Amino acid sequence: MPRPEKHVFVCTQNRPHGHPRGSCAASGCAEVMNEFMLEIQRRTLFEKIGLTNTGCMGPCGVGPSVLVYPEGVMYGKVGKADVKTIIEQHLLGGTPVEALKMPVEVW
Amino acid sequence: MPRPEKHVFVCTQNRPHGHPRGSCAASGCAEVMNEFMLEIQRRTLFEKIGLTNTGCMGPCGVGPSVLVYPEGVMYGKVGKADVKTIIEQHLLGGTPVEALKMPVEVW
Repeated sequence: MPRPEKHVFVCTQNRPHGHPRGSCAASGCAEVMNEFMLEIQRRTLFEKIGLTNTGCMGPCGVGPSVLVYPEGVMYGKVGKADVKTIIEQHLLGGTPVEALKMPVEVW
Repeated sequence: MPRPEKHVFVCTQNRPHGHPRGSCAASGCAEVMNEFMLEIQRRTLFEKIGLTNTGCMGPCGVGPSVLVYPEGVMYGKVGKADVKTIIEQHLLGGTPVEALKMPVEVW
């Protein structure tokens, strides 16, 4: 990808069923990653928004975790329906989505 | 992890042997990821430097790829021996390592 204006990192860490830490995979990250891909494609935002899947970023219990740089804003419990909000309000509009931010003690 | 001052993303994408795109795994990213982990541990930099493995970030032919935010500086062909330089000069010293930067046409 070319150097993007906003870079979205989606945790796609998986762990075995029943693992005490859980994982972003168990809480639905694949659907979130897919929705970002589809929306970026639909809106032709490839040059503006970068999208990368990652391993564990830490807050497994409040995932799926989505991190946006260069601001360093991390979102938790992100669902498929939140993706459009993040894209429109934050990535395009420039205003992070307060209601989805990780608790301060986590990030 | 707590919100870090610098966040290092190391591509750890793998592909089957002989795949035409190659991969950062084929060019030695595991050794690079491991060296970052060891150096961060040795210097007790957990709260200052975040470290996350990622899927493909694009420039597979000039990997291993290492991306540092919030600056958005991407390094290519990073070897184990470059890790100390990146940590000391860039992550702690604040000056990106020009010689290791990806070509402008790539990032």
